[in-house]
Amino acid sequence: MVIPTQANTSPGVALIGTGFMGKCHAMAWNNVGTVYGVPRPRLEILCDATEDAAHSHAAAFGFARASTDWKAALRDPAVDVVSIATPNGLHRPMAEAALEAGKHVWLEKPMALTLADAEAMAGLALSCPGQVTLLGYNYLRSPAFRAAQALIASGQIGTLRTFRGVYDEDYSADPALPWSWRMTRQGGGLGALGDLGCHLVSQMVALMGPVAELTAMTQIAVTERPSPDGPRAVENEDSAMALIRFGSGTQGSFATSRVARGRKCRLQWEVHGSEGTIVFDQENMNELWVHRTGEAGFTRHLSGPGQPEFAAFCPAPGHNFGFNEMKVVEAHDLLVAIGGGLNTGPDFVEGLAIERIIHAMAASDGRPVALGADK
Amino acid sequence: MVIPTQANTSPGVALIGTGFMGKCHAMAWNNVGTVYGVPRPRLEILCDATEDAAHSHAAAFGFARASTDWKAALRDPAVDVVSIATPNGLHRPMAEAALEAGKHVWLEKPMALTLADAEAMAGLALSCPGQVTLLGYNYLRSPAFRAAQALIASGQIGTLRTFRGVYDEDYSADPALPWSWRMTRQGGGLGALGDLGCHLVSQMVALMGPVAELTAMTQIAVTERPSPDGPRAVENEDSAMALIRFGSGTQGSFATSRVARGRKCRLQWEVHGSEGTIVFDQENMNELWVHRTGEAGFTRHLSGPGQPEFAAFCPAPGHNFGFNEMKVVEAHDLLVAIGGGLNTGPDFVEGLAIERIIHAMAASDGRPVALGADK
Amino acid sequence: MVIPTQANTSPGVALIGTGFMGKCHAMAWNNVGTVYGVPRPRLEILCDATEDAAHSHAAAFGFARASTDWKAALRDPAVDVVSIATPNGLHRPMAEAALEAGKHVWLEKPMALTLADAEAMAGLALSCPGQVTLLGYNYLRSPAFRAAQALIASGQIGTLRTFRGVYDEDYSADPALPWSWRMTRQGGGLGALGDLGCHLVSQMVALMGPVAELTAMTQIAVTERPSPDGPRAVENEDSAMALIRFGSGTQGSFATSRVARGRKCRLQWEVHGSEGTIVFDQENMNELWVHRTGEAGFTRHLSGPGQPEFAAFCPAPGHNFGFNEMKVVEAHDLLVAIGGGLNTGPDFVEGLAIERIIHAMAASDGRPVALGADK
Amino acid sequence: MVIPTQANTSPGVALIGTGFMGKCHAMAWNNVGTVYGVPRPRLEILCDATEDAAHSHAAAFGFARASTDWKAALRDPAVDVVSIATPNGLHRPMAEAALEAGKHVWLEKPMALTLADAEAMAGLALSCPGQVTLLGYNYLRSPAFRAAQALIASGQIGTLRTFRGVYDEDYSADPALPWSWRMTRQGGGLGALGDLGCHLVSQMVALMGPVAELTAMTQIAVTERPSPDGPRAVENEDSAMALIRFGSGTQGSFATSRVARGRKCRLQWEVHGSEGTIVFDQENMNELWVHRTGEAGFTRHLSGPGQPEFAAFCPAPGHNFGFNEMKVVEAHDLLVAIGGGLNTGPDFVEGLAIERIIHAMAASDGRPVALGADK
Repeated sequence: MVIPTQANTSPGVALIGTGFMGKCHAMAWNNVGTVYGVPRPRLEILCDATEDAAHSHAAAFGFARASTDWKAALRDPAVDVVSIATPNGLHRPMAEAALEAGKHVWLEKPMALTLADAEAMAGLALSCPGQVTLLGYNYLRSPAFRAAQALIASGQIGTLRTFRGVYDEDYSADPALPWSWRMTRQGGGLGALGDLGCHLVSQMVALMGPVAELTAMTQIAVTERPSPDGPRAVENEDSAMALIRFGSGTQGSFATSRVARGRKCRLQWEVHGSEGTIVFDQENMNELWVHRTGEAGFTRHLSGPGQPEFAAFCPAPGHNFGFNEMKVVEAHDLLVAIGGGLNTGPDFVEGLAIERIIHAMAASDGRPVALGADK
Repeated sequence: MVIPTQANTSPGVALIGTGFMGKCHAMAWNNVGTVYGVPRPRLEILCDATEDAAHSHAAAFGFARASTDWKAALRDPAVDVVSIATPNGLHRPMAEAALEAGKHVWLEKPMALTLADAEAMAGLALSCPGQVTLLGYNYLRSPAFRAAQALIASGQIGTLRTFRGVYDEDYSADPALPWSWRMTRQGGGLGALGDLGCHLVSQMVALMGPVAELTAMTQIAVTERPSPDGPRAVENEDSAMALIRFGSGTQGSFATSRVARGRKCRLQWEVHGSEGTIVFDQENMNELWVHRTGEAGFTRHLSGPGQPEFAAFCPAPGHNFGFNEMKVVEAHDLLVAIGGGLNTGPDFVEGLAIERIIHAMAASDGRPVALGADK
Repeated sequence: MVIPTQANTSPGVALIGTGFMGKCHAMAWNNVGTVYGVPRPRLEILCDATEDAAHSHAAAFGFARASTDWKAALRDPAVDVVSIATPNGLHRPMAEAALEAGKHVWLEKPMALTLADAEAMAGLALSCPGQVTLLGYNYLRSPAFRAAQALIASGQIGTLRTFRGVYDEDYSADPALPWSWRMTRQGGGLGALGDLGCHLVSQMVALMGPVAELTAMTQIAVTERPSPDGPRAVENEDSAMALIRFGSGTQGSFATSRVARGRKCRLQWEVHGSEGTIVFDQENMNELWVHRTGEAGFTRHLSGPGQPEFAAFCPAPGHNFGFNEMKVVEAHDLLVAIGGGLNTGPDFVEGLAIERIIHAMAASDGRPVALGADK
Repeated sequence: MVIPTQANTSPGVALIGTGFMGKCHAMAWNNVGTVYGVPRPRLEILCDATEDAAHSHAAAFGFARASTDWKAALRDPAVDVVSIATPNGLHRPMAEAALEAGKHVWLEKPMALTLADAEAMAGLALSCPGQVTLLGYNYLRSPAFRAAQALIASGQIGTLRTFRGVYDEDYSADPALPWSWRMTRQGGGLGALGDLGCHLVSQMVALMGPVAELTAMTQIAVTERPSPDGPRAVENEDSAMALIRFGSGTQGSFATSRVARGRKCRLQWEVHGSEGTIVFDQENMNELWVHRTGEAGFTRHLSGPGQPEFAAFCPAPGHNFGFNEMKVVEAHDLLVAIGGGLNTGPDFVEGLAIERIIHAMAASDGRPVALGADK
């Protein structure tokens, strides 16, 4: 007996962008139904720059239609939610157009290139209360990170005392790497702070609460890079370091670098509490290292089905959760919010708070900057 | 401009089973097009035990039709390839029916419960030369495992000398775990050898070549388990250990356990060569530890886009590859073979060789057993 | 044929203190000859508080005489060098008396409780140019630390860019730990900064050069502790964090805590260079993790006889060097300096620079403090 | 007030050998009093091959007299205990002469080159019941190893099920390493089994009890090596592997290699119990990894003063214990036995049992060999 499956009433999706993160969104949209046992979203329109690219990507990514016209796509009546995974300079116009078209928006980070852009976007989102906005801070959604949050929330490490975090990669470490528009303020924003640092801020704030004040130093390690026109100046941050005072009164240290040789995705932090310590490193994203009072040392908590985000994918502990799967969790969180559930965020307003922190770091130059989250 | 995507001429799929591995196959079928940029397979029929379950799973897994009749499904003309992810006792009848219906077969391991079953299945597969058979030895397909194979093939660790491997989990470690049919020879086959050991054999043979002779000891650590009818005997292996002589003349040690407290997916091995050593542990599946002559020590090779299987998913190193993604690689390998390319296997004939090794281990009782792969 | 060994013309030693570090000095004095193949020092006088303790310790520690009068001991004509391993408040009077008696001085860290004391001591040392002063910054002398210095000096990690360091322990983490004089400014000095932080400063300066400016925050995590007279206030730092600008123009982050649950001797740092990164953690003091351009990842450099400090103790790599053995290296360095060789320090003048840094951290309160090492 | 220390009535020591292990004995004899707070042993005679070497080593090692005549030295009335750290072929004559002279004997491993030698030595030791014999199996004496024994003895990991152990180094991995007498049966005994394997056996038996039966395979990986006379054959084992059945009915696997590239002191084992697992690796000798039922994963037990062997050296956890310090523990154990306390061994009789096991491994050639320890 063969039964035709029913008409799909789940949300219709348009995806703009097919690069690293566009493909990641496509995998998430294809898998979220399978993983969570919910009706598969309707993959309506895939936007790419040329007809050929749009066509071939749509066929592979499982989208019904291909388009080169993103403005039309996000106004399409079959589309309920727009995935935006384009270069950062396009984030603001696309997100604003999608909101103005009445759609939900799933936008990759960083939210925007300038603080003014982010403020405008948050303002518009506030004026569209029925529409969900979600920023692609995927590292918030790993099973291990959420397990860390749950450990803290349950009081198992006591009163929080200190945060120490770094996010280091080495993609710009080579001085021979040619100059590009990504190394300008206008094209690449805050450099390592905007590319990597904002991820660490998203986790730091999720763990420790809002920031009251910070003092930061930044560095351009490779000041000039080769270009066809001769050496050109690098304008944005290769690395940054900060001291943080949280609104709760606790303290933190923060560092990020895109020139840290040998580091590939070292989003690493530790939280000290009065009754324990938690340590995490994204390069080993399936491990949380936890010590609690009375335990003999640090224990490796290997991700497994006791963690809800893991359980959705696999019933077997130690069977590694992957980077791309965080995006599936994010897609599911988005579907829950679209369906009227809690938006676990960061939405555009929460995203603006993240932007304020990294812009304050870029501007500090060794002097304290108040962020206003004092108790 | 919106362009409708073209008619899909890619293979039609039927999937039987929606449990742990059935869902894993579904994720693979949904993602293989997106990941590899090939046309998305047609997901035709999803088979489950009841109409409701078939229906809801088909909707979530993205299949066009739902069915409770696997025999009809695998004869369906729209179906080209059958995914079988059912209890082990059903492997032989389903695989044979699919082959007899002219379909390609993707079958979960272990191939069968008895050596006679595996022999019959391999014989039938040999008589269907145009049909692809592939067994679900997914651990062969991780980026790190393939990188290890490539390192060996390139001669970077010299002449192979020794293999040392274990595969340990703890899912049966608790003596209070109730008795089940999985603990019988008839229902559960060779216990830890059939469930875990065959995976390690698949990697061992892929790295070291065929086995000439082995000597093994097995153990039932928990001899009786509680059941509603009182304690019942456990019939199959909780653990096994073996010494291996390979056809090449090199030596190996082998061990597996389902009662190793604290181990979750410790498929761990090392290969010693005249010029280097490679070490791997599936619990940290994105790392290969390599030492080569002249290097200062062991180096952590973190998976990244230099490994082709990784590159298909993500351009950024250190962004962890996940367990489920190995199955996407497997689906792609299957599509390549269906399309006329090389079948990287293990097909049913190679699977039979794996079965012969684990059955020899189960039967050895401390005495040498010849496998016939001498030079 | 039995030959009496010759008269010992090596330096005569007086040791004051038999606690943790006093015993450590005694082990060093007993072993330095054996390890380095130099004539065994004459162990002349062991000073302890009571006659019985002095006697039993002298017998066990191999000293010829026992004494309760440290003032007489350090004036004894048979004594050439004085080991001072007493509570911090006694460091200044004992060191000054030893210098005034014309002896060489080996003094445990921290140098003194106040900056004024340290300045006076450095001034006196400068006025005794023929007498060696050496501070017990033993972590400078591990084989791995010296190997890190050699890697940097050889240019193998290129131009230095960033330092990140922490030194965490948990000996004061328990809020139920009773109040003691160690938690006062007058008795315990700068708390975690004086006890732990100064060690990290000693390594930081040895790796990166002098500090130009720093900004720090400190914290008393447990503000009151139980005493027989009721709760009493803790006066000195439980933890501190700082941003550092080095005279060379590079940047650094610094943190220390005595309330970091689960940390036992986590003196951990990393140095980023233009061509590589070095990572160290004293809890695994026999490992240096190094990545250099062109290498596949981080490599574990396990200590071995390729490192001169290791070779003195053992010809076999991977045979772990221990904490106490760093003190033997220190004793040998001291003997070399006494014999007219280079004093590798830190002597009292270099120790004063360390004290200035930790006192600046204690005083910063979030504001930049200049240390004067600008280029 | 200065008090001369009393006459030393502690045992008088003669040491024969000043190489790797001779120096290690010398460090132990110099430090055992300091560490344990017992009267310093009298270091009477140091024996070396030439007068000059004897003289200079005696001065550095703190011995009163130097000698080139070991036969006279071990008969000297001031000598109570003889440390023998000479090439293996001298072990039997020296140990027998020392026993015949009525002295206690501390002998480096392996006990002897042949089983017949070991049997003769054990027989003689049995006939000297008042004289202590102790073999230098120093790895039995690390704080972590003893903590593992205590965990097992306390029942914290339940009933033992399985042992898995390896001891790998790479000192013979290079095929260009010249031939030497160490590679002959007569000069070098059982190769890797005698040099490394016996250490692993000593730990295996200490953890699991006596061996009932074993099956082993051995390998000469580099069959010929260069010599001034052209290539010469290597006669003894480069590596070995074995399956073990213990008298208790539990099972074990065993492997050792001197040609394992990159391994420096990988004496690594794990013990599986019904309620937990313990893992150890000598390259990180200050760590024990323990999982017990109910714990979230494996916990790192970093050595510290909770372990009695550690506490003798240092009151601060995480301050690494070193390789040479195991020998100090051994010296103390010997002094305790000489003083009439328990001899924790292995004495010569227990050492013979170890020799029987490695000789059985060398002779097995893939066939079971009974060792006679069945229940």
